[in-house]
Amino acid sequence: MVLDRLKQVASHVTGQTAPPHPFDPLSEVEIEKAVGIIRKDHSDVFFNAVTLWEPRKKEMMAWLANPEQNARPARKADVVCIAPGSKVYDGVVDLDEERIVSWAQTEGVQPLITMEDLQIVESVVRKDPKVIEQCGIIGIPPEDMYKVHCDPWTIGYDERFGTGVRLQQALMYYRPHVDDNQYTYPLDFCPIFNADKQEIIHIDIPKVRRPLNKAPPNNYHATSIEAEGGFRQDLKPINITQPEGVSFKMDGRIIDWQKWKFHIGFNYKEGLVLSNISFNDKGNERPIFWRISLAEMVVPYGNPEHPHQRKHAFDLGEYGGGYMTNSLSLGCDCKGAIHYMDAAFVNRAGQAQTIKNAICIHEEDAGILFKHTDFRDDACTVTRARKLIISQIFTAANYEYCVYWIFHQDGTIQLEIKLTGILNTYPMNDGEDLEGYGTEVYPGVNAHNHQHLFCMRIDPNIDGPNNTVFVADAARGAGEVGSKENYYGNAFYCKKTKLETQATGTSDYDGNTSRTWEMCNTSKLNPYSKKPVSYKLVSREVPPLLPKENSLVWKRAGFARHAIHVTKYNDDQIHPAGRHVPQTSGEPSQGLPAWLSAEPDASIADTDIVLWHTFGITHFPAPEDFPVMPAEPFSLLLRPRNFFTRNPCLDVPPSYCSVPSGVRQGNSLVDRISRLAFDGGNEGDKGEAKACCAK
Amino acid sequence: MVLDRLKQVASHVTGQTAPPHPFDPLSEVEIEKAVGIIRKDHSDVFFNAVTLWEPRKKEMMAWLANPEQNARPARKADVVCIAPGSKVYDGVVDLDEERIVSWAQTEGVQPLITMEDLQIVESVVRKDPKVIEQCGIIGIPPEDMYKVHCDPWTIGYDERFGTGVRLQQALMYYRPHVDDNQYTYPLDFCPIFNADKQEIIHIDIPKVRRPLNKAPPNNYHATSIEAEGGFRQDLKPINITQPEGVSFKMDGRIIDWQKWKFHIGFNYKEGLVLSNISFNDKGNERPIFWRISLAEMVVPYGNPEHPHQRKHAFDLGEYGGGYMTNSLSLGCDCKGAIHYMDAAFVNRAGQAQTIKNAICIHEEDAGILFKHTDFRDDACTVTRARKLIISQIFTAANYEYCVYWIFHQDGTIQLEIKLTGILNTYPMNDGEDLEGYGTEVYPGVNAHNHQHLFCMRIDPNIDGPNNTVFVADAARGAGEVGSKENYYGNAFYCKKTKLETQATGTSDYDGNTSRTWEMCNTSKLNPYSKKPVSYKLVSREVPPLLPKENSLVWKRAGFARHAIHVTKYNDDQIHPAGRHVPQTSGEPSQGLPAWLSAEPDASIADTDIVLWHTFGITHFPAPEDFPVMPAEPFSLLLRPRNFFTRNPCLDVPPSYCSVPSGVRQGNSLVDRISRLAFDGGNEGDKGEAKACCAK
Repeated sequence: MVLDRLKQVASHVTGQTAPPHPFDPLSEVEIEKAVGIIRKDHSDVFFNAVTLWEPRKKEMMAWLANPEQNARPARKADVVCIAPGSKVYDGVVDLDEERIVSWAQTEGVQPLITMEDLQIVESVVRKDPKVIEQCGIIGIPPEDMYKVHCDPWTIGYDERFGTGVRLQQALMYYRPHVDDNQYTYPLDFCPIFNADKQEIIHIDIPKVRRPLNKAPPNNYHATSIEAEGGFRQDLKPINITQPEGVSFKMDGRIIDWQKWKFHIGFNYKEGLVLSNISFNDKGNERPIFWRISLAEMVVPYGNPEHPHQRKHAFDLGEYGGGYMTNSLSLGCDCKGAIHYMDAAFVNRAGQAQTIKNAICIHEEDAGILFKHTDFRDDACTVTRARKLIISQIFTAANYEYCVYWIFHQDGTIQLEIKLTGILNTYPMNDGEDLEGYGTEVYPGVNAHNHQHLFCMRIDPNIDGPNNTVFVADAARGAGEVGSKENYYGNAFYCKKTKLETQATGTSDYDGNTSRTWEMCNTSKLNPYSKKPVSYKLVSREVPPLLPKENSLVWKRAGFARHAIHVTKYNDDQIHPAGRHVPQTSGEPSQGLPAWLSAEPDASIADTDIVLWHTFGITHFPAPEDFPVMPAEPFSLLLRPRNFFTRNPCLDVPPSYCSVPSGVRQGNSLVDRISRLAFDGGNEGDKGEAKACCAK
Repeated sequence: MVLDRLKQVASHVTGQTAPPHPFDPLSEVEIEKAVGIIRKDHSDVFFNAVTLWEPRKKEMMAWLANPEQNARPARKADVVCIAPGSKVYDGVVDLDEERIVSWAQTEGVQPLITMEDLQIVESVVRKDPKVIEQCGIIGIPPEDMYKVHCDPWTIGYDERFGTGVRLQQALMYYRPHVDDNQYTYPLDFCPIFNADKQEIIHIDIPKVRRPLNKAPPNNYHATSIEAEGGFRQDLKPINITQPEGVSFKMDGRIIDWQKWKFHIGFNYKEGLVLSNISFNDKGNERPIFWRISLAEMVVPYGNPEHPHQRKHAFDLGEYGGGYMTNSLSLGCDCKGAIHYMDAAFVNRAGQAQTIKNAICIHEEDAGILFKHTDFRDDACTVTRARKLIISQIFTAANYEYCVYWIFHQDGTIQLEIKLTGILNTYPMNDGEDLEGYGTEVYPGVNAHNHQHLFCMRIDPNIDGPNNTVFVADAARGAGEVGSKENYYGNAFYCKKTKLETQATGTSDYDGNTSRTWEMCNTSKLNPYSKKPVSYKLVSREVPPLLPKENSLVWKRAGFARHAIHVTKYNDDQIHPAGRHVPQTSGEPSQGLPAWLSAEPDASIADTDIVLWHTFGITHFPAPEDFPVMPAEPFSLLLRPRNFFTRNPCLDVPPSYCSVPSGVRQGNSLVDRISRLAFDGGNEGDKGEAKACCAK
């Protein structure tokens, strides 16, 4: 570390830039350097991805443990290219040695669809005679084709077309006026686009036709709200200010906040990646997680009518949570004192491009951290909480996913996801029976049932990499009512089941036992409780995958078959539905099922493991979700259990503290900014007389 | 309404005060008036409760519908008194007519324990020779008896002593120094206190003795934190200001905020009670809930060793969530612009006493309300959310319960509960096997497993009082993979089961189907979806009652046997474990089980109903919960489904709105207060050039 610092200082003096942290995403310069190296040997390709080839864990751990003795991991680029004829190449480039480490054509796969890939389709669709013909049939004259739009999705998988040709399906919409919300006007047919030849190769046309919706627009933009009576005027501002700045420090991309320390990475597929997360426990920097991220997701729709079975987007693996990320804005997406980070990607032509403000880092007040009043003497301590939020928002066609990684002072990490944006819609005829598979959210607009299933990849490092997962269930004690050991029938305890091997190391959710999963270091016991130090995964929105066993989605989204999979650590296992997801048939299933069946007996106890957690929500739409959906938040928690010897945030300054002896304690930190709502008074200003918790 | 206003104005002119709203809690004057009326005939009683006898629903609805034609409900007091010999009297006093409406001795019950009742026990315990003897046995000399403390609990139920005599159990603790946290020093025996004679009648002594803990104190007060190295210094202030004041209006205790309108009540048992909740839907004030409150709770502990089975506090029914409520403080318990309300109660002697700032009302920023960016043209709308929070905090001996009723602009009502305070503890010997029923959270300190189960009483009024509850489960569609109707196996829908009668109208939680419960008005269909207007209960922390069937707790806490009970509306059914809870045997079970078995076949479909929801958490303690527990929050939601015809908060002013046509829309409401964390810049000030969501 010291040597590294010296190097940084030296490079500053000599004008050379400090080397990036090995976890840092590739810079614009690095991306274009990798492209240049590839281009020398392969001039006919276009670029799908140039991203950090992450350092191998063993090498990285060694370097972090002793950066002076051990080699700094090399900067490498992980490259995906496409050549004419839908030929896919996977390669690794060593940026330090300026050479291609590996380069090979990968048969039978399609890499993800980029934003550029998406943008191309709409213009092709509008000119296609067969599409124009279909538009005419449902009521759109040829001169209005400029009002026709499409959300191009990967085709998912369609057995008629297989995997060899790169395809997209175009979900069709119409805008009467350029500013109208097109999801009010879905079209009933679905063109298939060949990305290699940039042409429409097929159109799926339903047996029963559904003409263009005749209902008036259902908009949410300002002009329409003003036309309907205007915005409400009675919302007074709430200002959030941090006059002394933020409570966190940044050293490059390493953040240091309230005893937490970790690296903030970002890539085109997963978006945010948090690495080497540690917590300073009384001067001892204890590792907790090696790497956490959202690694995959799938959004299956529940309408069995062809071709809706193809609507099951893998938004990360098929489009990229990084590629689709929003550029965030001050006071708009977050309030207070904000630190942003940009994200650099490659474009199709091999140039580096940057999304400004892709990552937002900020603090929020988090209410009461802890409080207790002794009823007999009114001794009271009340301490307010702060939280740190690392966030990104990505737009997946109609939907928005807001991802908030929230760090709490008590050692808890919370992942909050807010779903907003617009429902995917399909037309319906007047009085059509939707058979329970969708809801008419507006006249002529059918919003299909769907699930949002996320797969969180958790690489635990609970006081070291050798960890074990236990399933923890609340259970009734042995002995019936009246028995010696349980006379009053009130006995209950936490039943723990160790997960031993990859094949048996899966677990489903059980709300009835308040099931949680504990990641433990069984070699290290809490000195008080004598239980292994652990972090517990508390997740309560864990629907099962509703598409049936052996269904198309079940085969393609193997990770979603169980709430929990545990695997033995492997540097190459990052993407639980496979490295290249579009057009996988699921035969055999990629990612998790393949890894498990390759080594069913591999031990996952007391070794370096990864826990994969699938969670999310099932959404049966309703009219209040339209034309834009109020954000629906849900959370999961990673909580320390038997990790600390006591509440780790007792040293957060209290707002108020009084003791029975009456001895004056601490500084009164009562907020003197807060005011009474109606008399304009500030109780804080009334001085010490007003005890915070006095009755 | 107009007439009422005129009366108020007139009374202001004449110096007479306006009559209270019929839902308003009794004022100090009214309490003492009721006491005076009782005292005339019954001079020997002391007062357990004098609270609002709530107006009968029919009468109240009639008056609200037409206050000029229909009589204003009379002000009445609901009175509980205790006379020597543990004789209990229940009475109703008409305050307008100044007469006792009813008065009767109630046999075989004990009303709740007040704070005054609690305070008496400690002084008695310290002087009792047998207690002094027991203290001596475990290592506390007689001269240190002033260091001995107790948390007096109701006895719950103990078959040896029955219900006839008013009893408390004294959970014993010790403070080496007056400022030490006594929960580090629990004592192993448990005196039984006769409240009538104010004496110790028995001591439960364990077979295996556990001497006084010798471990050093484990404190969290400021002096101890400073002695350990002091408070952290790196937390910078976050200031929350509302320079233009709050966005809500108060008319007495009726609040009007962002289309919501409701009455804020408070009583000694339930604490906060919210009544006549409506939402202004485009000028139409639509009723949603007639009354919602936390009506009961039970905290069963899971250690089967005698006498721990008695630890299953009904914190509302046995102590009173209102009586135990904290006096809140500006900037300490809540930040921003706060409106407080006080709470008046009777004391034992019949005087009115007031807890200042018992209720806190404030707003908070709530992040993104909705957002969408169109990927093809970067048209973007982002709107921030506000929430309104009505809160109280009550201290139940060692624990704190923070109750937040949160109203959202999208029509959602959220109940958030934060658990904090201190674990209930029991001593343990070195190396003692806790058999899984507790955790050693500090040397010599055993914290027993426990559940916090709350019962929320929801009286729905979804576009009128006649409502029906449906159980809603996510379900796979008919037809196997490959079948005609479900070829790809992706069909799924929401299966709804109507609850028909009281006896069959119970439901347990099922996490596996993402179960929710819909309160519907089946006579009113959403014009778009053709589904009944409804509010959905989304609750994910719903453990079953872990004490076994026919156990003591199961018998006493009948409401906790199911996640959902539905009853036909009855004015007298407010308390699901019975009106008087202490010392009930559960034979027969009071409250919900009694109401159901009295009228098993009563229809609960399309009629005036009440939904009772039991939810909460199961807590297996860990050292990080000690010596004071970081707040553990959990929430449930009441969400509109098919209630509105569209997103009801589209008219909340956006932070930013751009449209494809580029026509300038709305006023840019981008927050110009937020700042960049490190360069001090304010992007908002850089003007229009920085589009909020431009990539």
